[in-house]
Amino acid sequence: MYSKYSSQLLDKAVDELASLPGIGRKTALRLALYLMKQPQENVERFSASFVNMRKNLKYCRCCNMISDNDLCPVCSDAGRNRSVICVVESIRDVMSIENTDHYKGLYFVLGGIISPMDGIGPSDLPIDRLLERASAEDTREVILALNTSPEGETTSFYIYRKLSVLGIVVSTIARGIGFGDDLEYADEFTLGKSIENRQLFKPDKF
Amino acid sequence: MYSKYSSQLLDKAVDELASLPGIGRKTALRLALYLMKQPQENVERFSASFVNMRKNLKYCRCCNMISDNDLCPVCSDAGRNRSVICVVESIRDVMSIENTDHYKGLYFVLGGIISPMDGIGPSDLPIDRLLERASAEDTREVILALNTSPEGETTSFYIYRKLSVLGIVVSTIARGIGFGDDLEYADEFTLGKSIENRQLFKPDKF
Repeated sequence: MYSKYSSQLLDKAVDELASLPGIGRKTALRLALYLMKQPQENVERFSASFVNMRKNLKYCRCCNMISDNDLCPVCSDAGRNRSVICVVESIRDVMSIENTDHYKGLYFVLGGIISPMDGIGPSDLPIDRLLERASAEDTREVILALNTSPEGETTSFYIYRKLSVLGIVVSTIARGIGFGDDLEYADEFTLGKSIENRQLFKPDKF
Repeated sequence: MYSKYSSQLLDKAVDELASLPGIGRKTALRLALYLMKQPQENVERFSASFVNMRKNLKYCRCCNMISDNDLCPVCSDAGRNRSVICVVESIRDVMSIENTDHYKGLYFVLGGIISPMDGIGPSDLPIDRLLERASAEDTREVILALNTSPEGETTSFYIYRKLSVLGIVVSTIARGIGFGDDLEYADEFTLGKSIENRQLFKPDKF
């Protein structure tokens, strides 16, 4: 007889909020009641921001990063090193690397990785576009920055094979013990690999 | 030079999501990117649900509960016991009690409690309307279901004094050890009070 919260309008808002990943119905209810208490213009601005984003946000035609324009700020920046392309799985990986302020090259967002279990093969990813970009431009090096899951490794290997025939240097980001991390708490695989892949000590870096 | 995430549209959506209580910027970003991946009509429905709710959801003119109409489903239900009014602090308290399916009377949502620290006095709460309702209708009993914080107790006492001169029975919900809870882990105050307020054992209830 009653709808769950005595109101279909509230129910709908709760349903929509609870459809977001990681938001349960209790949290959704709390958020909906919070919105109910805000001035109407704030709620209108809140709602409009998502529709605006979804409608007008584009993907960069060069690197697939989200962007307000056809070309993202990185790709359209003349100050970036255009001879290096860093290949990542997702938009958030680009954000993470940009936040380090340690990389001045370009990016390529794959938008996924090869995963036969999920029915994603190489042809489902824009790998052809990556190869095209890598060969057409003055690309000197491609950095693979994919995760080290089996799927990530498979994807890295696939791209490596395709790129190496083009004569492009393919590198991968360094894996090892994080700066400030205790050796004692590192997992054995990472520690083992970090000894295997040791580098010459360069005191001038300090 | 760059906006934080290379996009002002995304930034705005993240800002709006991060303005919600309990949602940090990392979660907000995750949610915004999730919305970016949804079909546009889903995002439009998502956004419209909040504006619709804020614009059209009303507060019941009788009990202050949120409602799609002037009178909430509880107040307009002829099957409810109109001689009992349960006083609660918030809309969510009504939902919690309704979910128990153990209460068939009416409600009155205060929308707050007396809290001198926050500058909320008795005149800032709709206590006059509660007294009016309690005296005008065939009210027999008012159940106080406010929290046992100092502010809650103050508010309960204030309402009790006002109601008792009207000759209305004022009760309060039972406090004690929760069903299924271990005595061992109960706080001493609750356990002490639950012994003090012990009730006659009624085996017929089982």
